[in-house]
Amino acid sequence: MSQEQIRAALRALPIELPSWGFANAGTRFGAFPEPGVARDIYEKIEDAATVHRLTGVCPTVAVHIPWDLPPAGKTWADIAEFAKSEGVAIGAINPNLFQDHDYKLGSVCNPDPAIRKKAVAHLKECAEIMKVTGSKLLSIWLADGTNYPGQDDIKSRRQRLIDCLAEGYAAMPDDGEMLVEYKLFEPAFYHTDLADWGTSFTVCQKLGERAKVLVDTGHHGHYTNIEFIVATLIAEGRLGGFHFNDRRYADDDLIVGSANPYALFCIFHELINGNDGKTAFQTAYMLDQSHVVEKKIEAMVLSVLNVQTAYAKALLVDRAALAEMQVAGDVMGAHAILRDAYETDVRPILAATREEIGRPADPLKALATDALVAERRARRQVEPARASGAGLGA
Amino acid sequence: MSQEQIRAALRALPIELPSWGFANAGTRFGAFPEPGVARDIYEKIEDAATVHRLTGVCPTVAVHIPWDLPPAGKTWADIAEFAKSEGVAIGAINPNLFQDHDYKLGSVCNPDPAIRKKAVAHLKECAEIMKVTGSKLLSIWLADGTNYPGQDDIKSRRQRLIDCLAEGYAAMPDDGEMLVEYKLFEPAFYHTDLADWGTSFTVCQKLGERAKVLVDTGHHGHYTNIEFIVATLIAEGRLGGFHFNDRRYADDDLIVGSANPYALFCIFHELINGNDGKTAFQTAYMLDQSHVVEKKIEAMVLSVLNVQTAYAKALLVDRAALAEMQVAGDVMGAHAILRDAYETDVRPILAATREEIGRPADPLKALATDALVAERRARRQVEPARASGAGLGA
Amino acid sequence: MSQEQIRAALRALPIELPSWGFANAGTRFGAFPEPGVARDIYEKIEDAATVHRLTGVCPTVAVHIPWDLPPAGKTWADIAEFAKSEGVAIGAINPNLFQDHDYKLGSVCNPDPAIRKKAVAHLKECAEIMKVTGSKLLSIWLADGTNYPGQDDIKSRRQRLIDCLAEGYAAMPDDGEMLVEYKLFEPAFYHTDLADWGTSFTVCQKLGERAKVLVDTGHHGHYTNIEFIVATLIAEGRLGGFHFNDRRYADDDLIVGSANPYALFCIFHELINGNDGKTAFQTAYMLDQSHVVEKKIEAMVLSVLNVQTAYAKALLVDRAALAEMQVAGDVMGAHAILRDAYETDVRPILAATREEIGRPADPLKALATDALVAERRARRQVEPARASGAGLGA
Amino acid sequence: MSQEQIRAALRALPIELPSWGFANAGTRFGAFPEPGVARDIYEKIEDAATVHRLTGVCPTVAVHIPWDLPPAGKTWADIAEFAKSEGVAIGAINPNLFQDHDYKLGSVCNPDPAIRKKAVAHLKECAEIMKVTGSKLLSIWLADGTNYPGQDDIKSRRQRLIDCLAEGYAAMPDDGEMLVEYKLFEPAFYHTDLADWGTSFTVCQKLGERAKVLVDTGHHGHYTNIEFIVATLIAEGRLGGFHFNDRRYADDDLIVGSANPYALFCIFHELINGNDGKTAFQTAYMLDQSHVVEKKIEAMVLSVLNVQTAYAKALLVDRAALAEMQVAGDVMGAHAILRDAYETDVRPILAATREEIGRPADPLKALATDALVAERRARRQVEPARASGAGLGA
Repeated sequence: MSQEQIRAALRALPIELPSWGFANAGTRFGAFPEPGVARDIYEKIEDAATVHRLTGVCPTVAVHIPWDLPPAGKTWADIAEFAKSEGVAIGAINPNLFQDHDYKLGSVCNPDPAIRKKAVAHLKECAEIMKVTGSKLLSIWLADGTNYPGQDDIKSRRQRLIDCLAEGYAAMPDDGEMLVEYKLFEPAFYHTDLADWGTSFTVCQKLGERAKVLVDTGHHGHYTNIEFIVATLIAEGRLGGFHFNDRRYADDDLIVGSANPYALFCIFHELINGNDGKTAFQTAYMLDQSHVVEKKIEAMVLSVLNVQTAYAKALLVDRAALAEMQVAGDVMGAHAILRDAYETDVRPILAATREEIGRPADPLKALATDALVAERRARRQVEPARASGAGLGA
Repeated sequence: MSQEQIRAALRALPIELPSWGFANAGTRFGAFPEPGVARDIYEKIEDAATVHRLTGVCPTVAVHIPWDLPPAGKTWADIAEFAKSEGVAIGAINPNLFQDHDYKLGSVCNPDPAIRKKAVAHLKECAEIMKVTGSKLLSIWLADGTNYPGQDDIKSRRQRLIDCLAEGYAAMPDDGEMLVEYKLFEPAFYHTDLADWGTSFTVCQKLGERAKVLVDTGHHGHYTNIEFIVATLIAEGRLGGFHFNDRRYADDDLIVGSANPYALFCIFHELINGNDGKTAFQTAYMLDQSHVVEKKIEAMVLSVLNVQTAYAKALLVDRAALAEMQVAGDVMGAHAILRDAYETDVRPILAATREEIGRPADPLKALATDALVAERRARRQVEPARASGAGLGA
Repeated sequence: MSQEQIRAALRALPIELPSWGFANAGTRFGAFPEPGVARDIYEKIEDAATVHRLTGVCPTVAVHIPWDLPPAGKTWADIAEFAKSEGVAIGAINPNLFQDHDYKLGSVCNPDPAIRKKAVAHLKECAEIMKVTGSKLLSIWLADGTNYPGQDDIKSRRQRLIDCLAEGYAAMPDDGEMLVEYKLFEPAFYHTDLADWGTSFTVCQKLGERAKVLVDTGHHGHYTNIEFIVATLIAEGRLGGFHFNDRRYADDDLIVGSANPYALFCIFHELINGNDGKTAFQTAYMLDQSHVVEKKIEAMVLSVLNVQTAYAKALLVDRAALAEMQVAGDVMGAHAILRDAYETDVRPILAATREEIGRPADPLKALATDALVAERRARRQVEPARASGAGLGA
Repeated sequence: MSQEQIRAALRALPIELPSWGFANAGTRFGAFPEPGVARDIYEKIEDAATVHRLTGVCPTVAVHIPWDLPPAGKTWADIAEFAKSEGVAIGAINPNLFQDHDYKLGSVCNPDPAIRKKAVAHLKECAEIMKVTGSKLLSIWLADGTNYPGQDDIKSRRQRLIDCLAEGYAAMPDDGEMLVEYKLFEPAFYHTDLADWGTSFTVCQKLGERAKVLVDTGHHGHYTNIEFIVATLIAEGRLGGFHFNDRRYADDDLIVGSANPYALFCIFHELINGNDGKTAFQTAYMLDQSHVVEKKIEAMVLSVLNVQTAYAKALLVDRAALAEMQVAGDVMGAHAILRDAYETDVRPILAATREEIGRPADPLKALATDALVAERRARRQVEPARASGAGLGA
């Protein structure tokens, strides 16, 4: 692939930013406030727009309901308008079905039908927000599960889950997609109702063609070969998208590509394979991180760079030569082709890619001296926020 | 459930023994021969029959091809006849698609079509053995996978896998079932072509209704809640059966229930739930272990006892009371019901279960003084085996 | 060991309760308040005293500073007096070096000397509390670590850690012990400054003879054989005590013995071995749990029962017979001896143990109808707490 | 650091090759012979010498006793002479205490004193080989452990271990070092007598100053931060050396740096830190891999390149700038410095490093057309080996 094609491919891969990644986040042991951090949906959109301004590839912002609700007197149409004025748009709608005290024993899987009804109502509310904002994605992550054997009936919970999600699915706009995320554990510590890709997959089959699996790169066991899951979901027509982040231990929600950059490269290798060796498969590429000790905007910019680094290296793989080696059974030769692509320094390509569209060659350096960001950070420390709202990462 | 019902349920759960579990086995660091151990298919059947004689619940023996091939001049019909004379029958047929040197880079996923053809021929050979022996199960475990990123194309391998298994599926007798086993890793260390239950499940959907997922309790990551998979597969109508064994680290192939007996109990709890709280779901209960330092027959008897212990305790769960607690959201109360069943000493029930059908109350003690076993062990140390054949556990 | 000896041993094993285990706790996704839960140090002591009243084996309560600080106008002497009036005493003093915003990048390992100084001052404050309350244990758990390679210098942090702890060690009363806890990860996700028992051990060697390793059963990787660590620390004279809880995935902080009761049994087996087969090695047995969905007092009572269950079963092991089997290399025979002890139903022994000292045979049942607990729970929902104070589990 | 200094540092880091890495190896499911592979100690030395000839940094070959025993009529002096004639020398002596049938239940930890005596005699034999060959390293890896709780007494085994190793230690030449390796599991599946670095460390303290810990990069749990262990062992003066290889799942023994190259980079970062930011700490850098599907010599060359790649990148870290960022608490800035070094393409530096000492710029390409290697591979397929001997990797 020519350098020009690679640059074009990089520009054509949109990376969605999570509103909650711009707010203070923590672990169960506490959070550490960053001065000047975003405090409401307006400020989160401002910061996401900054990342888009510096990188050129982040046109949308995912929102989390109710963390990002508009203030009294304002509507989601107003928020969408504000986003537009900042140069971005509203992306995936993320219902919150875990924080309300009613959800202690689950939301759509709760043994109490009244609580399930409340959860379904929230799904429908989010489906409405899709319509108002023009969002095409309803992104479902559930904390549902149990902590002790016997606490609830796994089989019954599965049926409740399917029934409730079916109502949410039906409420979506006709061109909307439901992304069904899974997670091995946390906050549930015995069983999780959507524990792995296989479970999400079988649920999607029940819901309909516009239900697809969402792969969060931090939601697997240590052993898991994520690119294999990606390849399988593409083959099955059910890859809905990603929540990118990185991990060493559990769902650490670190900057994507910061703990194991080679693993991210291997994922993009399969995404390109899944698109017959051309560019990466078309799906939702979203970040989902929780920045505890990092500066939030800086962390997001680096995350975008890391995704692009992995993608650029995967685009460099000589796929014709690779196919020859593979067919010949040349283990070392085939592996060497991936290794060569990975060892290439792609920072110059990335810089050129950005400069061609009028973005800074080094976005992190540009951010460090960005006047608007500095001014906003200063102002937020003295002026009240426009709306209430908070949010911790997941 | 009454004690009588429990005893009847225990007797009605057949546990299949693996021929290879009676032979010397080892790790990659070597094997340690046991004096008087079974050396060929005849002796393995003898030893399996001993376990059935002592426990009363092991009517069948799984065989591994070509480890268990009949000697020259003998047929599988002869072997089946010999098994019958020993009081057992031939169970699942297990093709070996990993040991031949041709399979270095895979069998049904191999990039070389000639090797795939050879693998398919072996599947068909095994389907023939099903017909001759009356076996209803073709049990597929593949070692296929790669060790290095790029070594082969994951997507292409998946298609080869489906195409080849489809030929094996078509060759089975009309009432035969194909059990598709998965394994996280080993011997492949980058990706495994059948890596998790989700992969096996999607492959089974392609093959047909008589393809089902085989759960080996040692083939998961540390985190995995196996009973959740069991519940899900039952709901989807795709639970084909078990390969029971236990593990702490990787696929350790230890005596089932010896490392974490509570986990086995939880599996049986879901198997009973999946059968609407009556007895355990009807499926293939098979042992698959590799005894490195244990005496083989003793290890098998203990394995059978451990499975029955877990089942008996799960049968003791007061399911009516449990359902009440669950609906009421009483976390501690519901969990306590499982805990109470688990803390019960079921050794007396198990002893009574066996004595009612003329088996020894304590099969391990009976084995220690069993004259026939002693005589066979002595004879095997001086007389040649009737056939060639070996086999390491997996 | 006779039944009488077992009952005496059970009564002689004191289990310390954590004040924070009686308060509302949660995960990073939120907490769910329990009506009538303890809100300050007085109420936590009341609840701990309830558990002691019902079980007879929990004479002390560990406290967490500053979560448990006395209210204005009151001193630690007053708190100690209140505890005495409730029938319990103050146990281990737990400094909190992770929640203050200054500790974002570490406490005693922080690159900023001013913050380290603050951390040392807190250690000295806790050493003073030991003197006032009569506590003999300073229990150190640090959240110190980093999230990204390069974030700080591992080598320098180690030296800072040793230097600061040495100051805290020197400030303790002469008969005080410093317990140095380790944890694999969380809240740090790249490296943790006290990551494993080996690190704590080398630090203890630097500090002095009264520094010992604290084993939290939830702070290891999946693979870890904890009883092996216990045996090693006993051999080295450095086993300081336990924080008991259970886990399946990460540091889940579940009820001890609820996820894998056999593992707890194996730990007690080594504790008895480490005391030459008599009773369990004398050390600090403390609970450290975080109850998210459970009722707090109920969860503590069950935890105590689970520890006693494991201990009672381990006491039942026929150690003379076991030693014979081991020396003879009889793998199956030796293992069977442990299995037999484990399969025994010890609930009757435990009930008798309690009844002999005037405690209820079934403490959970007694708790359900306990008038004092009911009255306190009701009152707390209408009356203000006596002091401020909160606390989440770790 | 200047490019010149980096090249000098790279040339000054010797990487020891394992004789057993040139032989056929497999998993417990079988091995796949490579045509022309080394069959005895002579041929293994030839192949190791080839790697040294192509890379210039592999002056020594570790040997494994008895796999590498000289043929009848030859002595270790002859073998050392042969190595010298090939341009290499004998490196670490590796006793084999796991394959003999006597070691079924352990070697130096075996309950049977006669077997322990045999194991000690083997240690002494290896200490003699050190003297004859001039080797300074006795490299101990034990398979000792148990598979079932109760199988043997952990405490007693620990004492036997220390007593036996002490005899081996005493037999070494005065300037010899004993390297004590640890491993989490395999082939033992319940407990391993040398399970983690902490255990090895406490044993080394008992043995003496010339006993040090050997870190095999594949012998840890998933979670383990190996560079943290490296930093700790350097601080304690007990880092004896490495067995390099890579893993995803268990002890996969893959080509070092092939599964997670960033982790290897982080290890070298700490090795340089441990030497005050100059070059990597002086210790034994050894490869220990098991090549199942790879061509053996090719795999070794790539392994050497991967080690050098990681080291070169770590040398590129701007340590002065890093220290400033760390002291300032600039998380993102400090991390970025490591990232920048890692993203650099160091293949040109490595090529220059080799060309300056007359080695090929691309050793893998040179190997592909190496006439001597081709000739040897051809000859070995028709001529008998000079000695017997085999060996599987560990």
